[in-house]
Amino acid sequence: LKEEERRTAVPGVATGLAVTGAGGDVLYIEASLADEETGETGVTLTGQLGDVMKESARIALSYLRSRGAEMELPVGDLKNRGVHIHVPAGAVPKDGPSAGVTMTTALASLLSGRLVRSDVAMTGEVSLTGRVLPIGGVKQKLLAAHRAGITTVLIPKRNEPDLDDVPAEVLEQLTVHVASDVREVLDWALEPATTGQTVAA
Amino acid sequence: LKEEERRTAVPGVATGLAVTGAGGDVLYIEASLADEETGETGVTLTGQLGDVMKESARIALSYLRSRGAEMELPVGDLKNRGVHIHVPAGAVPKDGPSAGVTMTTALASLLSGRLVRSDVAMTGEVSLTGRVLPIGGVKQKLLAAHRAGITTVLIPKRNEPDLDDVPAEVLEQLTVHVASDVREVLDWALEPATTGQTVAA
Amino acid sequence: LKEEERRTAVPGVATGLAVTGAGGDVLYIEASLADEETGETGVTLTGQLGDVMKESARIALSYLRSRGAEMELPVGDLKNRGVHIHVPAGAVPKDGPSAGVTMTTALASLLSGRLVRSDVAMTGEVSLTGRVLPIGGVKQKLLAAHRAGITTVLIPKRNEPDLDDVPAEVLEQLTVHVASDVREVLDWALEPATTGQTVAA
Amino acid sequence: LKEEERRTAVPGVATGLAVTGAGGDVLYIEASLADEETGETGVTLTGQLGDVMKESARIALSYLRSRGAEMELPVGDLKNRGVHIHVPAGAVPKDGPSAGVTMTTALASLLSGRLVRSDVAMTGEVSLTGRVLPIGGVKQKLLAAHRAGITTVLIPKRNEPDLDDVPAEVLEQLTVHVASDVREVLDWALEPATTGQTVAA
Amino acid sequence: LKEEERRTAVPGVATGLAVTGAGGDVLYIEASLADEETGETGVTLTGQLGDVMKESARIALSYLRSRGAEMELPVGDLKNRGVHIHVPAGAVPKDGPSAGVTMTTALASLLSGRLVRSDVAMTGEVSLTGRVLPIGGVKQKLLAAHRAGITTVLIPKRNEPDLDDVPAEVLEQLTVHVASDVREVLDWALEPATTGQTVAA
Amino acid sequence: LKEEERRTAVPGVATGLAVTGAGGDVLYIEASLADEETGETGVTLTGQLGDVMKESARIALSYLRSRGAEMELPVGDLKNRGVHIHVPAGAVPKDGPSAGVTMTTALASLLSGRLVRSDVAMTGEVSLTGRVLPIGGVKQKLLAAHRAGITTVLIPKRNEPDLDDVPAEVLEQLTVHVASDVREVLDWALEPATTGQTVAA
Ligand SMILES: [Ca+2]
Ligand SMILES: [Ca+2]
Ligand SMILES: [Ca+2]
Ligand SMILES: [Ca+2]
Ligand SMILES: [Ca+2]
Ligand SMILES: [Ca+2]
Ligand SMILES: [Ca+2]
Ligand SMILES: [Ca+2]
Ligand SMILES: [Ca+2]
Ligand SMILES: [Ca+2]
Ligand SMILES: [Ca+2]
Ligand SMILES: [Ca+2]
Repeated sequence: LKEEERRTAVPGVATGLAVTGAGGDVLYIEASLADEETGETGVTLTGQLGDVMKESARIALSYLRSRGAEMELPVGDLKNRGVHIHVPAGAVPKDGPSAGVTMTTALASLLSGRLVRSDVAMTGEVSLTGRVLPIGGVKQKLLAAHRAGITTVLIPKRNEPDLDDVPAEVLEQLTVHVASDVREVLDWALEPATTGQTVAA
Repeated sequence: LKEEERRTAVPGVATGLAVTGAGGDVLYIEASLADEETGETGVTLTGQLGDVMKESARIALSYLRSRGAEMELPVGDLKNRGVHIHVPAGAVPKDGPSAGVTMTTALASLLSGRLVRSDVAMTGEVSLTGRVLPIGGVKQKLLAAHRAGITTVLIPKRNEPDLDDVPAEVLEQLTVHVASDVREVLDWALEPATTGQTVAA
Repeated sequence: LKEEERRTAVPGVATGLAVTGAGGDVLYIEASLADEETGETGVTLTGQLGDVMKESARIALSYLRSRGAEMELPVGDLKNRGVHIHVPAGAVPKDGPSAGVTMTTALASLLSGRLVRSDVAMTGEVSLTGRVLPIGGVKQKLLAAHRAGITTVLIPKRNEPDLDDVPAEVLEQLTVHVASDVREVLDWALEPATTGQTVAA
Repeated sequence: LKEEERRTAVPGVATGLAVTGAGGDVLYIEASLADEETGETGVTLTGQLGDVMKESARIALSYLRSRGAEMELPVGDLKNRGVHIHVPAGAVPKDGPSAGVTMTTALASLLSGRLVRSDVAMTGEVSLTGRVLPIGGVKQKLLAAHRAGITTVLIPKRNEPDLDDVPAEVLEQLTVHVASDVREVLDWALEPATTGQTVAA
Repeated sequence: LKEEERRTAVPGVATGLAVTGAGGDVLYIEASLADEETGETGVTLTGQLGDVMKESARIALSYLRSRGAEMELPVGDLKNRGVHIHVPAGAVPKDGPSAGVTMTTALASLLSGRLVRSDVAMTGEVSLTGRVLPIGGVKQKLLAAHRAGITTVLIPKRNEPDLDDVPAEVLEQLTVHVASDVREVLDWALEPATTGQTVAA
Repeated sequence: LKEEERRTAVPGVATGLAVTGAGGDVLYIEASLADEETGETGVTLTGQLGDVMKESARIALSYLRSRGAEMELPVGDLKNRGVHIHVPAGAVPKDGPSAGVTMTTALASLLSGRLVRSDVAMTGEVSLTGRVLPIGGVKQKLLAAHRAGITTVLIPKRNEPDLDDVPAEVLEQLTVHVASDVREVLDWALEPATTGQTVAA
């Protein structure tokens, strides 16, 4: 089992791509729901997230709170169960809006109990209405995905021109999907529901 | 479908005009209401908004909370459903009072389920009683609207003299409306309610 | 209709006088009450108010909460309806204790539904027991009121000696009232209740 | 009617003594209780109070909350009615622990409806068990009281030696009381309850 | 009656020892419980306490909340009655973990209604499980206790070696107790319950 | 009884390993639950913990709130009983993510009433899904454990290569366990439940 398969082996985890001081990197967005019996409510965000990234988490939550029912997600679960979004590694500061699609996907996975496809990494800002907005660092992010053995990446449609900057030998080993609405991302990245599958968290 | 049509294709989104370091720019104000089942209440403001712009959002909300019922807006929806106002792009700091009319319009669109006219961009401070107060940067904002292919702009009545500074070739391609009360803005900018239309968020 | 008449044409607005970097200026204190259906409670203060001015708003509210019932104001309305006090222009920082009488008057107007006299501007600190305490800048404030076409001003009784510094030609065009208790201000500045008048906010 | 009589003419106001940059000064501690109908609860402290002075207010409140019932004060009024303590002038920063006795006296006056003796000014830190602890600036404070026409002052018993520093001609025109427990202060400084007197705030 | 007897003459007060800029000093930890009728709940900490000392108060409270019932303390009183811990003098900043035993003792005295022995001063950090951990400044603290006329001191068992640094002529006039668990401290420092004694606060 | 046995002699305490300015050190994570009668709810974190370490505590709690029921932990106890996590010594600032496994173990011990093995010290970051992530300072931490007389240590599986840096003479006196999931840690580190054992806090 490869690292990204182990990390995304439960619902609530999606693989993202980030730009760091030393090029790009793969990161995991983890989401959990408190057991209703614990009485925990509210939202907890950890992983030394900066202001912009915390706002991305708030946007992902509000998007699902306002649109999730249309997608048949059990959004009522958000009422009595605390949501926690964490981005390891715990000591590394992270910021920026480009984890929006990854956060939305992790939360939709958590609510639906459907796993996120383990071969996929994604990047893209999400607006409150679900538009996928362009981000920076496409080249570094695709190189990082490739280095990590990921075979499929999702980027915003408006970032398609940036694929010209990615070395051809990397691009030919990656399947690149583009999206302009986060609903397309969810349709594509979530595994089908398994009959009898239990929501894991 | 043009960009501003795609962005304002759901109730709760209005197009504004801002002054930036590099002239003027078009921005979108997005508003959503949490599904009642999610138990979410309260107000969330994102988009790296400065103090003054956050206060504009509070003023827009209080205006509708105190005057909205007179306009037959279902203000009771604000009771049990969290309101979120977001201004993409998520990483760009924004400030100033001139998004007041745009915020009020986005919220009235959200509550009424009536779309905002997609050919329109607007700018203007709003007072707590609904007065539309003058703003700065009329020239840069109209140039930005023109560049973005917008055909109709709304400015505060007290900014009419500033139209003298706008190049004639730009002005003749724009329809400019003026308003001194935000109620005039709402009457003019919101599309008629469609029979059977569902509130989208 | 003159500017100050338009601004004070609804209950909840009173005209104040401030000292600014460039002499004195007229400002408007606007107050609103959320519709009970909106579920909004609590106090919101906007207009880039400094610490001292925010405290003035708290004092005005506490004065009415403890003494308002004696004046037959419906103070129970403060229980289930959020109060918002705003001082345009939204981007201009403001501070100091001298808006105390204006804030108390705006709130009493809001609660009673009685308009504030539109020809009047006022200045004065208010203590928690309703004493009107002296303020600075009487000369600049009266010059500003005069420039703005205001005909009647109210100042603290203990500031009477400062009238000596105001140019005679200005003073003779102004009616100056003095007060040592804020109850005198309210009796004098609020228009009589109109039969059948509706509380506007 | 002298200034200090006007200021303490309602229950809830006591006269204190402070050290300022320019010697000593008289200050008034004002306390109010919100009308129960307003739904206001909690504690509000205004007057640009520093950390130590805010803590003095908390200590005065806790002292009365834990010991007030023994003194037959209606401490249950604190449950459903917001308490506000204000120290004019609103723009002048104030700090230090020596207003403890004055704050405790103002609050006890407010709860009991008994006026504070208008000829009295006081100074002294109060501990949570009601001990009156020594303070600084006895000389400057007594000179200030004398200048303001006050005839009676209260100081902590442990400050008696500091009376040696006060000019004899001032001391002989002042009646000086000392106390080591704040209960002695209350017994001495509060006027007898008037039959039929109404709690004023 | 000596000072430390006056200060500890009510339940809820214990005598501690601190290191200051000028050697050591005696300090009093005072605790009170709000009368249930006041509706006050929660925890208030005053006396210009630093972060570490505030955490000591939280630890003392949690220790009693989790272990107090085993010691037959009426911990249910903490539910509906606000707790206040104050450390005079109000204007002197204080910090450090060594007041842990004193805070735990003051709170246990308050809950049990048993006085703290007035001849005793104590110092020691307390862990969340009640372990008494070593502290600094044993020499200065014992000198201060001696100067203040205190005859008995309690120190952590792990500080016994530090007694070598205390001058022999001071040590022979002090009874020194050591403890490694705060339960030993409580057994030893609290006076027996008096029949018919009333909880004082 | 050795120090680490005394410290872990009650449920809710686990032994961790930290890197300090002066090499490595042993630290204890203490957790308690407030008695339900005290009305205390919520989470308290003390011990001068830095941001990253506070987030580790939040992650440990969320992990147990979402997964604890699967492990038959009585997570409903977290609903009505305040949780306190403390890390002595109280005055020493601590930070970093490597106490994650220790915090999770202390909390699981507290909930289950099962003691943590007293011969064991542990280090490792924990993700929200329970993955044990690698940490720094393996060499210094194992040296510190050895110095403290600890015989068994647990480290993250991904830190196995770092064992090469530990002196052979130390390694041969330590039993080193590795784990990649925190559930393995709990299974291994918690003593069997004693029949009739009482939850201690
Ligand atoms: Ca369950
Ligand atoms: Ca930032
Ligand atoms: Ca619904
Ligand atoms: Ca600002
Ligand atoms: Ca209504
Ligand atoms: Ca200030
Ligand atoms: Ca009443
Ligand atoms: Ca301070
Ligand atoms: Ca009672
Ligand atoms: Ca500190
Ligand atoms: Ca119990
Ligand atoms: Ca930090």
